[in-house]
Amino acid sequence: MRLVTFVPKPGASPRVGLVREGNRVADLAAVGGKPPFDAADMISLIAAGDRALAWLRDVAAKAKETVPLERVRLAAPIPRPRKNVFCVGWNYLDHFEEGAKSRTQKVDLPEHPAFFSKAATAVTGPYDAIPFDATASEKIDWEVELGVIIGPGGRNISDAAAMKHVFGYTVINDVSARDLQRRHNQWFKGKSLDGSCPTGPWIATADEISDPGDLRLTTRVNGVVKQDSNTSCMYFKLPRIIAELSLGLTLEAGDIIATGTPSGVGYARTPPEFLKPGDVLETEIVGLGLLRNRIGG
Amino acid sequence: MRLVTFVPKPGASPRVGLVREGNRVADLAAVGGKPPFDAADMISLIAAGDRALAWLRDVAAKAKETVPLERVRLAAPIPRPRKNVFCVGWNYLDHFEEGAKSRTQKVDLPEHPAFFSKAATAVTGPYDAIPFDATASEKIDWEVELGVIIGPGGRNISDAAAMKHVFGYTVINDVSARDLQRRHNQWFKGKSLDGSCPTGPWIATADEISDPGDLRLTTRVNGVVKQDSNTSCMYFKLPRIIAELSLGLTLEAGDIIATGTPSGVGYARTPPEFLKPGDVLETEIVGLGLLRNRIGG
Repeated sequence: MRLVTFVPKPGASPRVGLVREGNRVADLAAVGGKPPFDAADMISLIAAGDRALAWLRDVAAKAKETVPLERVRLAAPIPRPRKNVFCVGWNYLDHFEEGAKSRTQKVDLPEHPAFFSKAATAVTGPYDAIPFDATASEKIDWEVELGVIIGPGGRNISDAAAMKHVFGYTVINDVSARDLQRRHNQWFKGKSLDGSCPTGPWIATADEISDPGDLRLTTRVNGVVKQDSNTSCMYFKLPRIIAELSLGLTLEAGDIIATGTPSGVGYARTPPEFLKPGDVLETEIVGLGLLRNRIGG
Repeated sequence: MRLVTFVPKPGASPRVGLVREGNRVADLAAVGGKPPFDAADMISLIAAGDRALAWLRDVAAKAKETVPLERVRLAAPIPRPRKNVFCVGWNYLDHFEEGAKSRTQKVDLPEHPAFFSKAATAVTGPYDAIPFDATASEKIDWEVELGVIIGPGGRNISDAAAMKHVFGYTVINDVSARDLQRRHNQWFKGKSLDGSCPTGPWIATADEISDPGDLRLTTRVNGVVKQDSNTSCMYFKLPRIIAELSLGLTLEAGDIIATGTPSGVGYARTPPEFLKPGDVLETEIVGLGLLRNRIGG
């Protein structure tokens, strides 16, 4: 199933919807039959777990009233996560290597995932403009990433049990202000500008994605392909990421993990390329979805 | 004014309270007269701004019913922030220098604050036990820090305007798992274990603290002083921190900024020292408050 957070008309409150065949959206708050969760809130749905999934299949999938997807405005599936977005750095070898030439000091290939976060306020919708403010950064770069949405929470999750904690998947662009990322030493600030985490267009539930370890992921800027790889090239696979992240740290329903980007980012190109106002950034994971974000505005 | 989040009796919901003279707590939900905010929620109070402060002075400060502070359980003043805790690294020169000997590569003194985050789930109460799980980390270290609580939100806040965005102050220990901090490259994971952000005991509103740039801050372990410095030794002062952090990044009411720690941390001592189960960690900012957290349990 594909789940969206959408605004039915300008000024209305966001709703949670199920995207049905023919790209029609069923508003979960309007399908009749009280859902076992707050139907205006994706995190409540995720937290309700199997009860919610059963209700979606039994009730929402049969709702008569639907609206065409193109008639509503999509927000990020989780417009405001309850904490920062968890991120993994250097998780595709080719991206680690392309970055080596710009590092001033030699860095060994990591033996453990490099974790950092993007501020919760960075999350923005799949078709929203990404702010451009030259006083903050003139080096805005792209990073297509597979987003994992945590379902059942937990701590000290084993590799073997990890995939049972995945509710679904989404597309993320870990938009990065390279100048800020460098000058503040830790990556956090350069990863956390407002609007720097376009997410969506929906969450595909885990059963929709037969193999999250074999998904083609691409970035295009103004139609030109910049990144084109496959999640099979991840250095640390999803079970390992979830296990290491959850060691001593409780993961919760609705947590988002951005799992790293392949090569082809702007700063490592010759000459370096960065996004400028008016550019159109397309971020796609084939079979999962496509984000289209204009820069500036 | 000193504001607490407290649990009046085991099993009860947390409340927000005003600590009055004689260390007696007025429950804001029970003082009569409807407050202009959700009185069960510190973030709502902070977001209500001057209206809330006026109500506190006019109504809560005169409430007849109060309970002794020692009869209630204090939670962190903001038990669950809406995003991760913002943190500043290397913000006291002596701490930057004590760490230099254990760095494998030379690092220049920063020209800009090093920002990172602690997971929102790390926040714990002023007298709560800090979990000890040797499978996660055996190198749990201390870092006393002045916590700044943001009041009116904003983006691109100037140095000159920054202090108008401060609602108040609290005491934080940025408890750090040094082994995890190193092995995951970025500091985030080692800073984010459950219970690794004891906070409180209260928020002192900004008007209570005549000079946040002149506060003595100490850490004691089992009564032995380990850190003893003054916020006057901060390398980047509060206005600069708020200005740089808010560049392109919206700060919100209730955001927490941990502003860095002075020297005397465990890992840099000879020989290195770390916390072990049963140790009592006391974190104090004189004139602001004291945290007392047992390790383990």
